[in-house]
Amino acid sequence: MTDRRRDPTTLFSAAATGDRRALAKVLSMVERGGADSRAVAALAYKSGLQASTIGMTGAPGAGKSTLVDRLVALVRASGEEIGVLAVDPSSPFTGGAILGDRVRMQEHALDSGVFIRSMATRGHLGGLALAVPEAIRVLSAVGLPLVLVETVGVGQVEVEVASATDTTVVVVNPRWGDAIQANKAGLLEIADVFVINKADNPGARETRRDLEQMLDLSPASKWRPPVVETVATGGEGIEELWEQVRRHQLHLAADGSLERRRRQRTEREFRAVVSARIERDVERLLQDASLGTLTDDVVEHRLDPYEAADRVLAAARNETPEQ
Amino acid sequence: MTDRRRDPTTLFSAAATGDRRALAKVLSMVERGGADSRAVAALAYKSGLQASTIGMTGAPGAGKSTLVDRLVALVRASGEEIGVLAVDPSSPFTGGAILGDRVRMQEHALDSGVFIRSMATRGHLGGLALAVPEAIRVLSAVGLPLVLVETVGVGQVEVEVASATDTTVVVVNPRWGDAIQANKAGLLEIADVFVINKADNPGARETRRDLEQMLDLSPASKWRPPVVETVATGGEGIEELWEQVRRHQLHLAADGSLERRRRQRTEREFRAVVSARIERDVERLLQDASLGTLTDDVVEHRLDPYEAADRVLAAARNETPEQ
Repeated sequence: MTDRRRDPTTLFSAAATGDRRALAKVLSMVERGGADSRAVAALAYKSGLQASTIGMTGAPGAGKSTLVDRLVALVRASGEEIGVLAVDPSSPFTGGAILGDRVRMQEHALDSGVFIRSMATRGHLGGLALAVPEAIRVLSAVGLPLVLVETVGVGQVEVEVASATDTTVVVVNPRWGDAIQANKAGLLEIADVFVINKADNPGARETRRDLEQMLDLSPASKWRPPVVETVATGGEGIEELWEQVRRHQLHLAADGSLERRRRQRTEREFRAVVSARIERDVERLLQDASLGTLTDDVVEHRLDPYEAADRVLAAARNETPEQ
Repeated sequence: MTDRRRDPTTLFSAAATGDRRALAKVLSMVERGGADSRAVAALAYKSGLQASTIGMTGAPGAGKSTLVDRLVALVRASGEEIGVLAVDPSSPFTGGAILGDRVRMQEHALDSGVFIRSMATRGHLGGLALAVPEAIRVLSAVGLPLVLVETVGVGQVEVEVASATDTTVVVVNPRWGDAIQANKAGLLEIADVFVINKADNPGARETRRDLEQMLDLSPASKWRPPVVETVATGGEGIEELWEQVRRHQLHLAADGSLERRRRQRTEREFRAVVSARIERDVERLLQDASLGTLTDDVVEHRLDPYEAADRVLAAARNETPEQ
């Protein structure tokens, strides 16, 4: 008999009625991947609910967590509910992040209108790039109208995950070269709003000038990312930041680009799922004894890459499909 | 009966004996992709010959073509033969590039020790990222000991192609922000040698300082990319540039990293071929009438991405493998 406490459908239903412990268990299923994750994905997808999503990225130490906490407090003061996903690709088992969660959760411990959760991946197909959109859909499906995705750093996956949201906030500090580093990490292209946090430190003016110069050099667009100065520890600039985020969301909704962006994200995700499944099959085949020597054969010029690819793909076609 | 003048094996044999017109036809086969390209790939791969390869990349207008012409003249003065591939992803039918070739070819028209060819892709699987390594193998297989790959700009494909060589030369100019732009384009990571071309213009010292500062901030490595100043139009600095390229190649050979790098490139190429074939199959399936509505089904929440992926993959398994 199925353990009903661990059944995805039961847990999902409980989560949808506001049971936060059930929601946490559902998200663990998403992280772990496999059959439970598939079941959750189907349930969440069919709800059709879609939260407004905000991504926040920037170098480690830029003060993103404090900014997120301040934003959460602001949102809660207005009575809206919000979910936060803290994404850390470097922490496969969320050890450190979970400790951080507990500390942060205490602030909001008596407030069921906030749900904070760190995300790592323990086996989800395609890693965080696919697990996070699925987690966002779960939070949407249980009725949270706002989801904030915060990344620890600016690695490739983190940037990808933070930019797969409606509004992407990029956080820099008043440090020599910080704006240039942000640009180098590809953050200029994805930013909808810039934040200079710790703006009471020396160099804020120069950092703003660097950002504005880079924006001047960027291709013209209907939306020029505003630059907001904050001191998150003191709560300064948080309201202006939230106002700019809201302004961006109104801009997206007004000209139809919100629906277009979401459609494009869904299409990309679909293709990414297909590719990830096939790549996984291929990797498994390349580990297989009968095909394990193919890479050596190519490197040592016994086969050309196209012949070797033929053999892998022929083997993949003959495999029994796995659910 | 097969037209022997268009048969890949016949043309490849002729190219290997020094017939440059046959070589040009073989490279056209590589560009076009398909069965002839497969045959060429197999022949070239089995020769096992591997030229020393140099990539040259940098923003349009940096003077790369003039630098290449000067380097070719220098190499030819020492009696060595050399092949040049000019890669232009923006020109699918090589119209402009071919005109450029003709002008440039005239300089070396009486010299069979130089082979200059522009590369575009007209259908090769995986585009230039896979067609260029194949073209390099063809040039290697017909006995050219040196191959120089020049790109028109610093797009993603161009950077990928230029850096898939033994030694990558990055060209900048003495312009405000040029070094920063190069860094942003990911050129700092791939550069083995930096060139400041047009170094007789104002700002060369500042550009060198910017580059050296960025190198200071980079992770330490056994090879610190030297910065060479040239004035390609006047022929200044070309010998020093060539000396630094040679010094880098000796460095690679001395510590075994040449073999390691080439092995890694081959492995990556093999995986890229497999992935490109899979992506092509998936794209074809998604165009297929019976599966063409899947993307809409996902976007409109009738199917979740995993269910849709299942249908695509089930269809792929039932397809007859294509050669």
